[in-house]
Amino acid sequence: MASPAVGIDGIELWTGKLKLDLATTFAPAHDIDPNKFTKGLGLHASSLPDVYEDIVTMGANAALRLMQRHGLTPEDIGRIDVATETAFDNAKPVATYIAGCLAQVMEGDFAHANLGERKFACIAGTQALDDAANWIHSGRHRGRKALVIATDTALYERGDPGEATQGAGAVAMLVSESPSVTAFGLPQGIGSADETDFLKPHRQFPSVDGKRSMQVYLGRIQDALADFAAAGGSTDPDAHAQFLFHTPFPGMVKKAAVLGYLDGVQGTARGDALAEDLGTLAHPDTFADGRAYLDVLKAHAKHLKQTDHYANWYARAVTPTLKVARQVGNWYTGSVHVARASGLLHAAHSERALTGQPLIVASYGSGAQAEVHAETVQAGWRDEAEALTIQQQLDARYDLSYDEYEAIHAVHTYGAESNLSPRTAPSGEFVVDGRGPMGEYTYAYVA
Amino acid sequence: MASPAVGIDGIELWTGKLKLDLATTFAPAHDIDPNKFTKGLGLHASSLPDVYEDIVTMGANAALRLMQRHGLTPEDIGRIDVATETAFDNAKPVATYIAGCLAQVMEGDFAHANLGERKFACIAGTQALDDAANWIHSGRHRGRKALVIATDTALYERGDPGEATQGAGAVAMLVSESPSVTAFGLPQGIGSADETDFLKPHRQFPSVDGKRSMQVYLGRIQDALADFAAAGGSTDPDAHAQFLFHTPFPGMVKKAAVLGYLDGVQGTARGDALAEDLGTLAHPDTFADGRAYLDVLKAHAKHLKQTDHYANWYARAVTPTLKVARQVGNWYTGSVHVARASGLLHAAHSERALTGQPLIVASYGSGAQAEVHAETVQAGWRDEAEALTIQQQLDARYDLSYDEYEAIHAVHTYGAESNLSPRTAPSGEFVVDGRGPMGEYTYAYVA
Repeated sequence: MASPAVGIDGIELWTGKLKLDLATTFAPAHDIDPNKFTKGLGLHASSLPDVYEDIVTMGANAALRLMQRHGLTPEDIGRIDVATETAFDNAKPVATYIAGCLAQVMEGDFAHANLGERKFACIAGTQALDDAANWIHSGRHRGRKALVIATDTALYERGDPGEATQGAGAVAMLVSESPSVTAFGLPQGIGSADETDFLKPHRQFPSVDGKRSMQVYLGRIQDALADFAAAGGSTDPDAHAQFLFHTPFPGMVKKAAVLGYLDGVQGTARGDALAEDLGTLAHPDTFADGRAYLDVLKAHAKHLKQTDHYANWYARAVTPTLKVARQVGNWYTGSVHVARASGLLHAAHSERALTGQPLIVASYGSGAQAEVHAETVQAGWRDEAEALTIQQQLDARYDLSYDEYEAIHAVHTYGAESNLSPRTAPSGEFVVDGRGPMGEYTYAYVA
Repeated sequence: MASPAVGIDGIELWTGKLKLDLATTFAPAHDIDPNKFTKGLGLHASSLPDVYEDIVTMGANAALRLMQRHGLTPEDIGRIDVATETAFDNAKPVATYIAGCLAQVMEGDFAHANLGERKFACIAGTQALDDAANWIHSGRHRGRKALVIATDTALYERGDPGEATQGAGAVAMLVSESPSVTAFGLPQGIGSADETDFLKPHRQFPSVDGKRSMQVYLGRIQDALADFAAAGGSTDPDAHAQFLFHTPFPGMVKKAAVLGYLDGVQGTARGDALAEDLGTLAHPDTFADGRAYLDVLKAHAKHLKQTDHYANWYARAVTPTLKVARQVGNWYTGSVHVARASGLLHAAHSERALTGQPLIVASYGSGAQAEVHAETVQAGWRDEAEALTIQQQLDARYDLSYDEYEAIHAVHTYGAESNLSPRTAPSGEFVVDGRGPMGEYTYAYVA
């Protein structure tokens, strides 16, 4: 079926307004070598929410700025899809709170808009984008755009190994016909399995099985790459400007990139030569133990890094997508969309020409599923990238002391009662301003 | 854009295996006139889960029977979308557990299937159907069908006014091209608002503001009806074989039907005459108080019931959709889909001809949103209705004593530890069989 181009027409990021510096604040307090974070994980800092921020305020703030920048009113928006794994209500979706916030300050309301929420660990943001694109393909959108918001506060229990990978922020995206940033390709590769690598059973903080979780991530990516090829997709490293991967921490992407690259060169002279030198990299699921697989993968990565083709590809196609993640940590559902913004931002700054070039987007959610698709960069990408203020937002974050970090973590722990003062002053943004009659959060706009 | 017909290709229901009789068991224990339940709410019994049942087992059992009946293998299914407001994990979706269950007993697996979960109170089941249909319209389905499962255990705190409206069960539906049961119309009416009529903030049991919740339901339905007309839809009562409404309890549908009917006759001689006799029924939101609105609505309903046209329409188009709900209570996300199955089942039993006739489907979720669309009944509807075993399932439920009800409610309260023996013996179905290493539920098939 011939389809109109559908894809991303706008992107906005909103970071939590506090910063936990891993090398100078977190590492000394834990008596850990800072290189473990900055080199091992590839992370320099985490974004955390101030006391008046949560997933609603971050999502609504990203959405408001995006709509204002694009000159949109509520009448232009036909659906608001929110992806999160930090929901605080088992029935009422975050999208209703965000629509309520936006209607406080905009002309009109969202009564005509289909509001929804998806949950599937970190992949739900991509699933929400898919829903929005499919809705436009169906012809039910009546000329309207979709607002897709991935918003999360990724906190771990104090002392958990995941504590160094925390993060908080939101990515808002417009999805439309004839999009100005990227157009989605039709082929889609899926790799899913019933896995228990990361769970939050009736609880706020996740239980994670670290090495196993990495093995599950890589296994699902490998399956999704194979399914993408079966659907007619290509991952040729030379043909794609950038490869975006779900980025719980940049070190994870170093591993995933090996799979993406090997998939892309499969069946070529280069792929054959690599297979001869290294042997074929077995499927992650064939290893009984995550550590054993990661050791084998590491050997492949080490060999690949010494080849110019791989090193140049990684520097060109992957490194730019990690620049924001290094400064913010894991934004869960927003993570792979942070990678897209990061890649576009870097290309704009380095005067690269991207229009018409394809990107590979490899999303992942624990539990578990990966999805791979391609997007073609559209002519308006540079304007959108240049309008992003994420670097200014990051520079403006309040740099927490370790004592302040401990206090702010406690504030955001469910059930905590706290009168901690905010570290920053809200201005031109939505804030949590109290509790309603049923204990629900209420929100206000601070001019 | 010309679109192929997309809609429901199969339906299966699975009820919780226990029954709480409201008139003979619940009413005497609470010293309440049974008519309050059987006449007022229109409910005779609630379905409740036995100790080895939960949203995963009920959903997987409905899905397995549906796939087997349609001769499908996992390879035929391209996505599994689950709607629930009874999720027990904030990251891992129920769809992964259900895919895992099905793969235990079927040939092949669901690695290629896009698994997902939607949350928006009771409307998420309809949203998941929409997602599946839009996915097919997008051309990304590669010839596969979608499996959509609405599964919930609707429990209230003991003593809550909602306790009499409890229920538990799952509806599984196949969505495909050239569907055999119903085809979805393109026009879609939405009415959404940021409301706090029903919340579960960090808790299992809902907080409900009863009269207010009814007013919000009716306000959103009225908005969705208006938006449906704006999208080109019609609700002409004479032109539609059945009107399905979200059914928290059948008494609520009595009220909603008034809005549906008045919308349908608007602008006709009949509508004008009614407006002259009764005055125009104001929008629910224009009443400061839910009770005041409900009194006005009651007066309209009383007048309408005395007209043959309304009484005949209600008996033909609405009453058949409530027959199953009267016996099972509220299945939350499944509720409006129970109404569809009930209507088709009744039509098959009464030898009505439905092929080619349109239905109106009016869904609702607190928080709040209504959606209205039409479906056209397809030629295979009767075979599908005749294959449904829901009445046999209902008749086979174990009839709980009040003491047993109290014990089973406690078992299904989160955090409870209990060794209560099941009241029924599982056979040919999935059951909860324990806990895994991270405290997650594990499942097995009992032959």
